[in-house]
Amino acid sequence: MDPAEGLGAGPTIQAHHTVTFQVPRLALILPETGTAAGTWFMRPIGLDAKMLESTQRIGDWVEGADIRRALKPRGRFTHKGSYGHSLVIAGGAGCHGAGVLAATGCARSGVGLLTVHGVENTIQQIGAAMPDVMTSVDANRDHIGQLPDLERYTAVAFGPGVGVAKGPKEVLKELLGRWNGPLVLDADALSLLAQERDLLDRLSSSTVLTPHPKEMDRLLGCSSSSSYDRLCRSKAFAQEVGCTVVLKGAYTAVCSSDGRVYFNSTGNSGMAKGGTGDVLTGLLVGLLAQGYDPLEASILSNYVHGLSGDFAAADLGVDAMRASDLVQYMPKAWSRLRRP
Amino acid sequence: MDPAEGLGAGPTIQAHHTVTFQVPRLALILPETGTAAGTWFMRPIGLDAKMLESTQRIGDWVEGADIRRALKPRGRFTHKGSYGHSLVIAGGAGCHGAGVLAATGCARSGVGLLTVHGVENTIQQIGAAMPDVMTSVDANRDHIGQLPDLERYTAVAFGPGVGVAKGPKEVLKELLGRWNGPLVLDADALSLLAQERDLLDRLSSSTVLTPHPKEMDRLLGCSSSSSYDRLCRSKAFAQEVGCTVVLKGAYTAVCSSDGRVYFNSTGNSGMAKGGTGDVLTGLLVGLLAQGYDPLEASILSNYVHGLSGDFAAADLGVDAMRASDLVQYMPKAWSRLRRP
Amino acid sequence: MDPAEGLGAGPTIQAHHTVTFQVPRLALILPETGTAAGTWFMRPIGLDAKMLESTQRIGDWVEGADIRRALKPRGRFTHKGSYGHSLVIAGGAGCHGAGVLAATGCARSGVGLLTVHGVENTIQQIGAAMPDVMTSVDANRDHIGQLPDLERYTAVAFGPGVGVAKGPKEVLKELLGRWNGPLVLDADALSLLAQERDLLDRLSSSTVLTPHPKEMDRLLGCSSSSSYDRLCRSKAFAQEVGCTVVLKGAYTAVCSSDGRVYFNSTGNSGMAKGGTGDVLTGLLVGLLAQGYDPLEASILSNYVHGLSGDFAAADLGVDAMRASDLVQYMPKAWSRLRRP
Amino acid sequence: MDPAEGLGAGPTIQAHHTVTFQVPRLALILPETGTAAGTWFMRPIGLDAKMLESTQRIGDWVEGADIRRALKPRGRFTHKGSYGHSLVIAGGAGCHGAGVLAATGCARSGVGLLTVHGVENTIQQIGAAMPDVMTSVDANRDHIGQLPDLERYTAVAFGPGVGVAKGPKEVLKELLGRWNGPLVLDADALSLLAQERDLLDRLSSSTVLTPHPKEMDRLLGCSSSSSYDRLCRSKAFAQEVGCTVVLKGAYTAVCSSDGRVYFNSTGNSGMAKGGTGDVLTGLLVGLLAQGYDPLEASILSNYVHGLSGDFAAADLGVDAMRASDLVQYMPKAWSRLRRP
Repeated sequence: MDPAEGLGAGPTIQAHHTVTFQVPRLALILPETGTAAGTWFMRPIGLDAKMLESTQRIGDWVEGADIRRALKPRGRFTHKGSYGHSLVIAGGAGCHGAGVLAATGCARSGVGLLTVHGVENTIQQIGAAMPDVMTSVDANRDHIGQLPDLERYTAVAFGPGVGVAKGPKEVLKELLGRWNGPLVLDADALSLLAQERDLLDRLSSSTVLTPHPKEMDRLLGCSSSSSYDRLCRSKAFAQEVGCTVVLKGAYTAVCSSDGRVYFNSTGNSGMAKGGTGDVLTGLLVGLLAQGYDPLEASILSNYVHGLSGDFAAADLGVDAMRASDLVQYMPKAWSRLRRP
Repeated sequence: MDPAEGLGAGPTIQAHHTVTFQVPRLALILPETGTAAGTWFMRPIGLDAKMLESTQRIGDWVEGADIRRALKPRGRFTHKGSYGHSLVIAGGAGCHGAGVLAATGCARSGVGLLTVHGVENTIQQIGAAMPDVMTSVDANRDHIGQLPDLERYTAVAFGPGVGVAKGPKEVLKELLGRWNGPLVLDADALSLLAQERDLLDRLSSSTVLTPHPKEMDRLLGCSSSSSYDRLCRSKAFAQEVGCTVVLKGAYTAVCSSDGRVYFNSTGNSGMAKGGTGDVLTGLLVGLLAQGYDPLEASILSNYVHGLSGDFAAADLGVDAMRASDLVQYMPKAWSRLRRP
Repeated sequence: MDPAEGLGAGPTIQAHHTVTFQVPRLALILPETGTAAGTWFMRPIGLDAKMLESTQRIGDWVEGADIRRALKPRGRFTHKGSYGHSLVIAGGAGCHGAGVLAATGCARSGVGLLTVHGVENTIQQIGAAMPDVMTSVDANRDHIGQLPDLERYTAVAFGPGVGVAKGPKEVLKELLGRWNGPLVLDADALSLLAQERDLLDRLSSSTVLTPHPKEMDRLLGCSSSSSYDRLCRSKAFAQEVGCTVVLKGAYTAVCSSDGRVYFNSTGNSGMAKGGTGDVLTGLLVGLLAQGYDPLEASILSNYVHGLSGDFAAADLGVDAMRASDLVQYMPKAWSRLRRP
Repeated sequence: MDPAEGLGAGPTIQAHHTVTFQVPRLALILPETGTAAGTWFMRPIGLDAKMLESTQRIGDWVEGADIRRALKPRGRFTHKGSYGHSLVIAGGAGCHGAGVLAATGCARSGVGLLTVHGVENTIQQIGAAMPDVMTSVDANRDHIGQLPDLERYTAVAFGPGVGVAKGPKEVLKELLGRWNGPLVLDADALSLLAQERDLLDRLSSSTVLTPHPKEMDRLLGCSSSSSYDRLCRSKAFAQEVGCTVVLKGAYTAVCSSDGRVYFNSTGNSGMAKGGTGDVLTGLLVGLLAQGYDPLEASILSNYVHGLSGDFAAADLGVDAMRASDLVQYMPKAWSRLRRP
């Protein structure tokens, strides 16, 4: 049931603080009702774990302990080939930095190798900022129009800053035809998918879509009546299309292709700025390249991304922090999660 | 009355320290007399707040508590669209860095999105330094000559480093014709206004001008006889033109369109270096984009700017600190102001 | 004897921790067996030093005390000419950053002067990142095809990112014909050597090759049956060719031209990422330029490189750390080794 | 008398530590003898200050207290116009970074405004690194060949990285004809002066030359027989030419146009690397622009430069530290000197 259903029927208390027992209620997580809760805390009251597990619910709450259990060990005798090779296709006229942000996010994911494909201006910016990234230059000037050879790669991300021109649209079509491996589609790629809905049938089960609410509505082809409505539709969409959907928000919801939903517990309003999503895309494709499955990689990348943001906010404040700061604080987030 | 009026009529004591009671005297704030005061301190002596409030005075002294009260909260369920979209039009031959500095100042303002419009060289520098900024390239090589579509933006800044050639002059005219929203005019834009005085009639009440004393004199069309004279004329100018005037100085005076004046209490001589004004312009337009009104945004941006400078001076010294250091210390300033 | 010989003949215990007495066993150092040891510790049990010294063994274990003894003092009255001049030839289409990483590694080696020769894009990236590096621009666009005048240099590195096109191949031939001084051949240079095996005869005794296992197999002209097999062959190869071979791995083995082997004890799995080898190449050529002989420079550079990586991992975590972070932590490694 | 005169006549003790009383002996400062002293300490033994002052000696030892007394205050009511405008003419093919290093040194000097004139590649590097610098692009591609209008500037530096081609030579001639104000000539400018010795007659008393020993010998037109010989000749040269000479070395000697010599007490062997001199040039011209006279600016800039190097060495070690690190530690040096 939509927690917001009763809103408006009577007076609403605007709380300063709210305590929830054992698990968060959906009402705390969705904007329409969550804003009335103020700061909320979760306190255990000894509810039976088995009972909770069998309770009907829309999704699960992800915490640090869940993430720690999911992390793969990094053995002493591994080498760069052990951690995959990500390809990031990003950037275009007016948005070259989106490629840089995605690349930096990926470079802090633990990936073994990273190549960025983009137009010359994007690649020049990558070069100046990131000497450890390999590059592939598209022959077009403003927007990409070529897909590089995909043989060497273990995971691909496509979308941030590429634009919705004919070039990137054709590249997306070609990519979906030629690549069945782990794939992240974000930003402009989602707008292109919404325009060419028959492409949805071509998405493999290794695909992760990372829409914010407006992009989700465009994918759904309709304007959602509420956040709850959008969440339910997103969950159904992920099952129908057979891919993973990362519905971004204050508490991002990861919807798996088999109907599960996971709510991310990290992040803050300092991340409500352009470019933070590009960083997530890079981090996500870096995890996919290392062999995490689409659901694991989605849950893990959102947690690390938000935790990086929380560390950034603690140091820099929610006003001053920027998308590039997320990458600066990612080492701290990883270190916290790897600490025994 | 001009506090400097009596100067020269008799001997002046050059104090090492001065104590002022409850509120600062104008004599401490203006250069002609302030230099004689040495370091000054303000101490409460129990004067009645209501009496003070009703006292005739040229302006009010702004302190941290005033700023804290003025800050808007940043709610958990907000997104980048909640914090506006700034357009910075800046940079040109010989001064491309002015665009970078304005952009970095804006990027640490809390704004949701930021686009910079400039000539190719400016945009390349932005790109190398700031991946989270969107860009719009002017077709001209040395100085801008085009105004981008303004639909997407909530606030605009124009001026730093653009030069006073025909191109930027035409862009300024077009901008004043097409844009009625929040607007900052700084640096070369002020020189252009002084050259084309009929443009002053086109300034909307959402406009903020940020002149240093020489630029103010040019706007006034006459050389001021003293700092006090300039302050009084600036106050009158703001009322006549119907905009906000930020008269920069050791204690910057924000003059509102309705005749109020606010003196900024932060900042130091380490900021007496090229580029610090560009950072202020960026910070100011970022606050305007977030919905602060011109007076609030002017007061707040000057306070944060000066506080960043004070933190920079404490760490780096007044000699070594540079304009770009202000941006590095802006997170510390914001964090201090947001601290409960 | 290959420590892995018995593997598979019976059950293997997967230990969490292993203690080794006085010196590490080869089984701990090679991947096939080392993975079963878990974390291992070395504890002294009072074995006689002379006896140990005369024991038959494949190689020696290098620790901090060995490195400290090998470091040359840096006298007060020295000048930049006292510390040599390195030439780094690196970078090419798709891999311009390899040149940057090699250059930054070299710039933190203590070298007096550093020049990088590369194609224009590589040189532009160097310029943006490293103002203290002198540059030489190759006339070719994608891959180098020219060898600069070598008179001014005391040591040369060739290889990272240059590619295996005709241009770099000809440059390598010319270099081996014209240069008899200290030389590092890495990455693509090793692939070129494997292609043109007659070039192996031209390598002087001042040459250091720095292959990872796959590159070593290519140099050997055959696929090794095990890590032990590869180690023995590398040792023999170094003696036959008469140069120093740095066989990279979890415990890098430095094989001298006179049959000695030294195992490096620093480093971690966070370094299993693209670009870390380029940093090593730069550090190594910087030490050669300062007058360390090929064996000393190889042992020392690997130790400092790995120690930098260990400091990086402690601060940033093995997931998030990147190749460029090694250079950031190199000062800490040097300081630790120089500490009395 | 040359302290090294007796060397070789009998055995020399190589000390680990040496104690000198009240003031350093010249033998400690010159390389031929100083290397035998090991680390030395200066201890007061109550010698009469007046007696010391009247003692015949080649020069004075400069310490922190001398520098503190020489520093100009930075008043609250000053603005960027109060601190002058430096013009740095630097950089050229192969050495674009020299312009960047000089510019960063100047930007941390306390100067109000800074403009760099150079070829396009140099200016692009400046732009990417330093948004607070104004720029002037030379029409030539590899080496400068134009002198910008000098009206706006209060001090000029010429030389680092410009090369010795015809273009920079003509610019130097024109500069000496058109500019009588404070001027630093460094690096290639010194080689050009040595080539065109009649230019020496055109140097004004506001000129500072900053040669290292080899450059000094070239200026003198002869190879010095010892460091003492070079020092005496440099002292005489400064008097004859009527300018200030900064003879660089482990203990840099500033020789005034009126026959005084000041030995700098800061610095270390970690600074024996390419680019450190460029940083000094920038710092020096920044002080000249602020109104320090040539002798004061020379003494002060060397002290700050060396102190920055000492702080860098303490943190980064003498091996790993680079020229650009000097600029990073300059704020710490300034802060230490400004501390009451």
